[in-house]
Amino acid sequence: MKRAALILAVLASPLWAGTDDLTATGDLGLVIERATGSLLVIDRSDRAAIGRVEGLGDLSHASLTYSPDERFAYVFGRDGGLSKVDMLTQTVVARTVQAGNSIGGAISDDGKLVAVSNYDPGGVKVFDAETLALVADIPAAGKTIGLVDVPGRRFAWTVWDTGEVFLGDFSGAEPLIAMIGNAGVNPFDAVLTDDAHTYLVGLFGEKGVTAFDLWDDAPKPEKFLTDYGREGEDMPVYKMPHLQGWAFTEGQYALPAVGRHQLLWVDRATQEQVATTEMHGQPVFVIAQPASPFVWVNFATPLNDVVQVVDSRSHEVVATLTPGKAILHMEFAPRGAEVWISSRDDNKILIYDTRTREKVAEIAADSPSGIFFTARAHRTGL
Amino acid sequence: MKRAALILAVLASPLWAGTDDLTATGDLGLVIERATGSLLVIDRSDRAAIGRVEGLGDLSHASLTYSPDERFAYVFGRDGGLSKVDMLTQTVVARTVQAGNSIGGAISDDGKLVAVSNYDPGGVKVFDAETLALVADIPAAGKTIGLVDVPGRRFAWTVWDTGEVFLGDFSGAEPLIAMIGNAGVNPFDAVLTDDAHTYLVGLFGEKGVTAFDLWDDAPKPEKFLTDYGREGEDMPVYKMPHLQGWAFTEGQYALPAVGRHQLLWVDRATQEQVATTEMHGQPVFVIAQPASPFVWVNFATPLNDVVQVVDSRSHEVVATLTPGKAILHMEFAPRGAEVWISSRDDNKILIYDTRTREKVAEIAADSPSGIFFTARAHRTGL
Repeated sequence: MKRAALILAVLASPLWAGTDDLTATGDLGLVIERATGSLLVIDRSDRAAIGRVEGLGDLSHASLTYSPDERFAYVFGRDGGLSKVDMLTQTVVARTVQAGNSIGGAISDDGKLVAVSNYDPGGVKVFDAETLALVADIPAAGKTIGLVDVPGRRFAWTVWDTGEVFLGDFSGAEPLIAMIGNAGVNPFDAVLTDDAHTYLVGLFGEKGVTAFDLWDDAPKPEKFLTDYGREGEDMPVYKMPHLQGWAFTEGQYALPAVGRHQLLWVDRATQEQVATTEMHGQPVFVIAQPASPFVWVNFATPLNDVVQVVDSRSHEVVATLTPGKAILHMEFAPRGAEVWISSRDDNKILIYDTRTREKVAEIAADSPSGIFFTARAHRTGL
Repeated sequence: MKRAALILAVLASPLWAGTDDLTATGDLGLVIERATGSLLVIDRSDRAAIGRVEGLGDLSHASLTYSPDERFAYVFGRDGGLSKVDMLTQTVVARTVQAGNSIGGAISDDGKLVAVSNYDPGGVKVFDAETLALVADIPAAGKTIGLVDVPGRRFAWTVWDTGEVFLGDFSGAEPLIAMIGNAGVNPFDAVLTDDAHTYLVGLFGEKGVTAFDLWDDAPKPEKFLTDYGREGEDMPVYKMPHLQGWAFTEGQYALPAVGRHQLLWVDRATQEQVATTEMHGQPVFVIAQPASPFVWVNFATPLNDVVQVVDSRSHEVVATLTPGKAILHMEFAPRGAEVWISSRDDNKILIYDTRTREKVAEIAADSPSGIFFTARAHRTGL
């Protein structure tokens, strides 16, 4: 290394102080405040909370997705409420209680349709993204899980009770719904790889993960990891892992082992397990730090005050952090420079520099859980 | 397939007619109008031009990058001009002519620094992203090419005349500049993979491509494709391919063969050539359609009225389109539903649905070349 003895100005980092009150939406985000049914509006560049939206109902288990222009958030509440929030006016502009209990949703690739997966009654409802008018109501023989958007105005979802996996095509005048196969016993969540190639379904009622190749005209179920943890004994599952957090890096899937203090590494091409990493607790979210070899992992209660960082090349834990009490979620800046971590019982969002792994800022929040940056608008399968 | 006989509303697609004049920035973009030195402001959701910014100087070979909030564009002109454009007010808010001839630039992962690579005089200049004040001036022994952002407030670049590759770290009080190896004879462009893992340098003075593993603490040059096209004869190169368009899909690089009517497929893990696709002409941009197995290719003059689509699984051409005259660039919606194509000599932007591969709309533009959606703000290495 040689030092460049060159012109060097002191780099201040002032907040943007424009001469107007216009707001761009590319670096905004929302934090779910689970106890109060509110959303904290955050500005990523300013590392600040800039507002709060209330009246979202029961957000004790909630998620959201964004419109393509990064202006509107569609919030899926536990109470079956679907709310449309305007990030610029910080108001709820539409809301419908569309089921008794919902667990998530997705927006179509063209931004025109919002689909919600429901537990009670089971099934998928599809809404016009502009008005929240009901467009299609697709019943199911049980609880629907793992709803994802698929390119071509399509969605995929899975039924917990029956193991059935469906692909719905909403590009024509009428929806076309196809059952593409059975994943196995009690699928608990599913996820789509970022290239929309593979729909992975995690099983709770039996060992294993089932993959569907969605690039294929006739996708078929392919089961793998069917014998993980055959030696040793499973522990009670304190918190079901979230598969939306499954990391895809270095040609591998990094999967949380259900009921184990382990991360399982699977070669993406062969679907063979290539490594196991012993972890601090039962992994909940396993999230790849963008543009890096690292994945960050948080854990189920009661070991949920720790975050570990694992190198996807060596499969070794390279850092163990104790950011705060009840770490529920982590969200990376889209190019990976920072990670925002919610510490529910400290009522804080903690911001870490991913290179130094040091805390650089914190923001007060009321029992924060999920953190969602608007950059998600541009990603498939979220 | 069974048809769902369910509630189905007619899906209208009205433009958003809010009660305010607020604008979100997530679905905006800019088109370079090369003959007039202007930028056309486009709205992706509305498939419309919504304004024009003038006074950008010589844009006959220009590119741009966006701030993390998707509000500002940094435009790199051929005349060495660096301009900062506000997408919301549609004005030039800062401009500096910082060299005699520049060829591109990048913004740091934290959005604080903008770096420009120059031909005349050669070297890299780094500016404060807010004010465009000069922060560092790094001379080079020749023309700089292939400047990319690397996580951790770093940039990488290469020198055409000497083959030297540099990594600059601007995270501390003073920049640290390291020469990390020699790529070979006359590198003409370079590109970073989306995971920031591999910096690939294309060579013009000899056969081959040189890779640097930027996840390694001590990156070393590794040359591959050194014998492609040993049989057969090279043609004159009508237009140097753009490596920023190199596609990464299905564990492969899809590379334009310099001086050949061919696409070369290289296994990303082994760096072995796995296939060759015979093409309509000399490839210029080879761009992966997001969330799909397909890459789209345009061609050098005089065969530049054609676009071909290749399947990365079979390596076969699956579609040959003739969208218009002098096809200079293609930009995909970030989730892949549409591709916007510039037809310079038709003075049009053509919008194609990627699923049907049919044209769905067109927009008038004055000699359009590069098309840049704001979603680029969230991607590494652009």
